[in-house]
Amino acid sequence: MRVVGCGCSRTLVSRWVDPRPIGVFDSGVGGLTVLAALERALPQESFLYLGDTARLPYGTKSQASVERYALQCAAVLTARNVKAVVVACNTASAAALPALAAAHPEIPVVGVIAPGAAAVVAATRNRRVAVLATEGTVRAGAYQEAIAALDPSLQVTAICCSVFVALAEEGWGEGAVAELAARRYLGDTFAQQFGPDTLLLGCTHFPLLRRTLAALLPASIALVDSAETTAAAVVALVGERMGCGVGAMGTRFLATDGPERFARVGSLFLGRPLLAVDVERIDV
Amino acid sequence: MRVVGCGCSRTLVSRWVDPRPIGVFDSGVGGLTVLAALERALPQESFLYLGDTARLPYGTKSQASVERYALQCAAVLTARNVKAVVVACNTASAAALPALAAAHPEIPVVGVIAPGAAAVVAATRNRRVAVLATEGTVRAGAYQEAIAALDPSLQVTAICCSVFVALAEEGWGEGAVAELAARRYLGDTFAQQFGPDTLLLGCTHFPLLRRTLAALLPASIALVDSAETTAAAVVALVGERMGCGVGAMGTRFLATDGPERFARVGSLFLGRPLLAVDVERIDV
Repeated sequence: MRVVGCGCSRTLVSRWVDPRPIGVFDSGVGGLTVLAALERALPQESFLYLGDTARLPYGTKSQASVERYALQCAAVLTARNVKAVVVACNTASAAALPALAAAHPEIPVVGVIAPGAAAVVAATRNRRVAVLATEGTVRAGAYQEAIAALDPSLQVTAICCSVFVALAEEGWGEGAVAELAARRYLGDTFAQQFGPDTLLLGCTHFPLLRRTLAALLPASIALVDSAETTAAAVVALVGERMGCGVGAMGTRFLATDGPERFARVGSLFLGRPLLAVDVERIDV
Repeated sequence: MRVVGCGCSRTLVSRWVDPRPIGVFDSGVGGLTVLAALERALPQESFLYLGDTARLPYGTKSQASVERYALQCAAVLTARNVKAVVVACNTASAAALPALAAAHPEIPVVGVIAPGAAAVVAATRNRRVAVLATEGTVRAGAYQEAIAALDPSLQVTAICCSVFVALAEEGWGEGAVAELAARRYLGDTFAQQFGPDTLLLGCTHFPLLRRTLAALLPASIALVDSAETTAAAVVALVGERMGCGVGAMGTRFLATDGPERFARVGSLFLGRPLLAVDVERIDV
């Protein structure tokens, strides 16, 4: 079906319509920052979010296990008739994107790493960028590789900021503890005379520290949020590789472990209240 | 065999000897604080430590899963001929101690919760105690129950200090970030006129914040470290329920996931250098 002016944020006048939701999954609640960015960017779309909380964290699991988990998560979403799968998880994006795309050739599969890498390459002026991520993501080198694939001349500093994850989950993304932790992680890097001019938030938890980081760093530093760049990548697919939604039907939530913690901690990441009764517990 | 004066720290003059190691397991590196306390308290004993790092954290898993994991860990240790099993993990102690004792009636099985509970009951004067633990331990209520079983009149305040886990693993147990976090978690409780006079470190990670906590709190507060109380409980069994070691043969380490991170982060918890080559990777 083709309609004219369906309300998408892109300027195409003609779109085909597909009322199915966009599927989003993560190992837990972190991916809710990606979902929040998607909801903001695509107000006419509906979403189905799956948090594989029973098996988190993915970051310490083997690549083979993460690939298997990711395929199972995507299968849950496609069984519920989604029109795209967004992998809102750095570890799963790094480990499983080719397998996911091969398993679901009929729909687009979008990860968080490529859009973030493309955004920093576009943003930097002095060819020096810093990637903040968890230890697993830094060690796996996925952002470093993705950036090097686009521009091997860029100098990439990867900084493990593991404590940020706990601060975000505790609701301490702003305040004195977060400020001190950020100063400790980033002070040396940004005190350099020729330090990075671009900072990538390479973990779905880190948008909760965005304001803390912005206040700490010079205004000249570009802050790239991989949740937002991922949402922008999905926006670019609407009308191209998938049909346009017909107005938000709301977002549905699935979790593989207790809905209570998912809802309570998830509210912080989603930026709006989330109730346990709105979270369906499923087994994968 | 009975010998006289075998070097045990207790004052019995006659002991039977058993050169087998004492087995210790945890979901990860946290239990190494318990191991360190055991090594200090029992210099004539040898130890075999298993960190089930591939399946951590236990705290978010179901009780049935944790019981199964704990039984598997204990089976690994007993297959390697240990003379006792120390469950250096709060979650496994709460979920699996009866099953472990039933599965291994021939050797003592000691958890971390009962010794810690007994110590705070003995230490408090004003009948008010605070238990610092992770969200999972607080929610499971194991310390609250164990304390109430010994003295139901005690008033127990349980405080979730989840960020302490990340600080300990990052090597930030001391310093400005830990001080601020401790102030934020504990300030209200200990500012009360009739606050607790006894504080239990109810997570194996928290001994790394011990100095930070001691500096923050009034000197009148008794700080009970469940790693040390567990070691004391094991000391009490030597010569009673198990034979005395014949001189330390060193400690051996097993881990179910990468030895590198286990050794690097584990060194912080053990309080001495630990090399990846000294950690045997096993499958459970």
